[in-house]
Amino acid sequence: MNDHDADLATGTLFGALEDPALNSMNFLNEVAIRYPDAIPLAAGRPSEEFFDLADVPRYLDAFCRYLADELGQTGEQVRRTVLQYGRTKGIIHELVAKNVLLDEGIAVDPESVVVTAGCQEAMFLVLRALRADERDVLLAVSPTYVGLTGAARLVDLPVRPVRTGEHGIDLDDLVAVIRRERAAGRRPRACYVMPDFANPSGLSMDLETRRRLLEVAEAEDVLLLEDNPYGLFHGDSDRVPTLKALDRRRRVVYLGSFAKTVLPGARVGYVLADQRVAAADGAVGLFADQLSKIKSMLTVNTSPIAQAVVGGRLLAHGCRLATANARERALYAGNLRRIVDGLAERFPRDPDVTWTVPAGGFFVVVTVGFAVDDRLLERSARDYGVLWTPMGHFYDSVTDVRSLRLSCSAVSGAQIDLGLDRLRKLINDRRSATGTGRGRLADGAPGEP
Amino acid sequence: MNDHDADLATGTLFGALEDPALNSMNFLNEVAIRYPDAIPLAAGRPSEEFFDLADVPRYLDAFCRYLADELGQTGEQVRRTVLQYGRTKGIIHELVAKNVLLDEGIAVDPESVVVTAGCQEAMFLVLRALRADERDVLLAVSPTYVGLTGAARLVDLPVRPVRTGEHGIDLDDLVAVIRRERAAGRRPRACYVMPDFANPSGLSMDLETRRRLLEVAEAEDVLLLEDNPYGLFHGDSDRVPTLKALDRRRRVVYLGSFAKTVLPGARVGYVLADQRVAAADGAVGLFADQLSKIKSMLTVNTSPIAQAVVGGRLLAHGCRLATANARERALYAGNLRRIVDGLAERFPRDPDVTWTVPAGGFFVVVTVGFAVDDRLLERSARDYGVLWTPMGHFYDSVTDVRSLRLSCSAVSGAQIDLGLDRLRKLINDRRSATGTGRGRLADGAPGEP
Repeated sequence: MNDHDADLATGTLFGALEDPALNSMNFLNEVAIRYPDAIPLAAGRPSEEFFDLADVPRYLDAFCRYLADELGQTGEQVRRTVLQYGRTKGIIHELVAKNVLLDEGIAVDPESVVVTAGCQEAMFLVLRALRADERDVLLAVSPTYVGLTGAARLVDLPVRPVRTGEHGIDLDDLVAVIRRERAAGRRPRACYVMPDFANPSGLSMDLETRRRLLEVAEAEDVLLLEDNPYGLFHGDSDRVPTLKALDRRRRVVYLGSFAKTVLPGARVGYVLADQRVAAADGAVGLFADQLSKIKSMLTVNTSPIAQAVVGGRLLAHGCRLATANARERALYAGNLRRIVDGLAERFPRDPDVTWTVPAGGFFVVVTVGFAVDDRLLERSARDYGVLWTPMGHFYDSVTDVRSLRLSCSAVSGAQIDLGLDRLRKLINDRRSATGTGRGRLADGAPGEP
Repeated sequence: MNDHDADLATGTLFGALEDPALNSMNFLNEVAIRYPDAIPLAAGRPSEEFFDLADVPRYLDAFCRYLADELGQTGEQVRRTVLQYGRTKGIIHELVAKNVLLDEGIAVDPESVVVTAGCQEAMFLVLRALRADERDVLLAVSPTYVGLTGAARLVDLPVRPVRTGEHGIDLDDLVAVIRRERAAGRRPRACYVMPDFANPSGLSMDLETRRRLLEVAEAEDVLLLEDNPYGLFHGDSDRVPTLKALDRRRRVVYLGSFAKTVLPGARVGYVLADQRVAAADGAVGLFADQLSKIKSMLTVNTSPIAQAVVGGRLLAHGCRLATANARERALYAGNLRRIVDGLAERFPRDPDVTWTVPAGGFFVVVTVGFAVDDRLLERSARDYGVLWTPMGHFYDSVTDVRSLRLSCSAVSGAQIDLGLDRLRKLINDRRSATGTGRGRLADGAPGEP
């Protein structure tokens, strides 16, 4: 094809279609598809080891029995609930509310739950609702999950980076950014955070930081968007309560995912939005009901068949996904240790190569003394047979990023060993070529802008 | 609750949350939920008569066998395809392409298919892509499906009404609206049409109108968004080809739904977007790939479990949904006749009450001599026990609408008879009360603005 055949020009389409954030996922997927034999240390998908196709009808059946036995639905009503159009906010809201109470200590009215077509839709709903006009801005701890940046692009909502610091968020920087934005006539609406094993940094916030973050949000009058896909996958340490569990003033909108804890193929997530919203006429309702209006025009409702699969798994485990995921937790914790130990073996006393040591989750960030970009990833996939994610994908408009993300979730122990061998060779070859050799001091602060 | 307890004020949220279009579905659902015993002549959902929960595992199994036997996937690959994250544009694209070829005579590269979380998401993707800035406007045959108007609101895209006329679209008005908008400095990007048994009008376009519409689109350089959820449910007459089947210059973006032909609970729809898009660097790709970028930030991918259910049903019927829906087609055609005949029996030689006589689909529009609004619907539900849809929901900013929509899809024959008896009583009571009694001339043109 050449451009004389074109029917449309990108210049006449939505500008963000050319934005790196909207092209990131496609590019990374494409590289993975082109090099299927490369070790997938890039993939953030959950392990398939425990997947079973027979689970789908089994969970579906368990959910239908619950509708009949617990909710007293007739056979006709059960069929209608699972196969027909349904409630915009979802049909597993009560099970979700029970799950977050048991697993996270979050007490929330089931009416505050909106079940979504994956957590990605939940992000979109919240950002669309909060974006009233061009003065609104969103804050996000940087580096930021690219799906958040992409969703913000869809509603023309600028994302301002907040420094990560040592404890998962630099609160002084948060306050400074909020005040700078306000001084410039803009309205910071919320700050997006992933307090548990963040994607991509792997960092977590300690309890004190969480408490102070809630205080700052209250004092500065912004919401917190807490995204928690990895919280259940902690290592040996005890977990710190989520922000939402600590939230006493409805400052936190909580974004939940079942992609890692049930099945990615269900594409079911949710948002807890218990904020009270006052209409012009003084009537007060739930933020969840505002989100529901947007959802009714976006996807109508989340597939009740997919919801039933998730509901069935929740029911099979007394609504506790922490215990249901014991095997997965052990697998990921072991893999994470193997990556961290493997890096220590391969780069002993090497000042140019450093890495994070997360307490759980899927991700380790490796910092090197040279720029890491998409071209290097392609070379790594083609010539070295190992995939990873350039950290540049998680920064908005930063170019010289010198770090890469490794994921522990979709690889075996043997693949980790082989993948790290290949990564060592890539890093060493690259250092020889650029003169940023071992022993030489890194020539710039890597990573964070 | 009172407003002193509020955490957020609607004035600080997305303005369209207060828009009638975004509140329409919720209001109509609420009335139906509050009056569960009222005859549902409002509900556009498909008949549940042939639904079977056992279909879900059966279709799932059929799709998995296809992956293994036809596509040569290993057991591990099948599990991954159905349960893991997957291709943004979907996994049943080849089956969808085969289906539209067999049922609609539409020849399209499977790469032009984007499988979506219901047709509603497909609308959003297309409108988001076409809305570049505040100059862009969308045209739509009025009355318009409220889901289209709502999706347009989410991307701040104004919708300009085009008159329906006698043949489903008034082409002179279409040209006039396009030129008026251009003269005002705006960019009409596309016209949304439902050429087969439109929701809500029930009207269809004849072949000549379709051909001329394609010529106008070409001459005026706008796209056509063809939405076709009801095409397979024609009465005894032969069907006219869809716009997309007649489209020789890629003027038509085709929106498809499996909600009525497979299962609403799968929430699977699709868009055919074979337009060629030229990037700034001269590279040419498919419009579908631009939509895919947006989808990657909206819902990531459509649940492959839900897609597998739809795929299994397609496979079970050789990808022909026309034959698969023979029973449904007969049911709806019978119900539609029963409504039209029932109206003729109940309002013989009545100049104040008229109705459309569609050749298929779900909807009949009844025009009366008085304004029909949401309050009248509430009274009808409460005092008369019959639900219908005020046509005002399908007009943007028109108040004095004197017609209502009846749907034939979710009622039995006996319910139709009883519902029409109740509707007659409501209409006659209302005429007595307002003095717009039988025999008196209607005091204004009803319906179309």
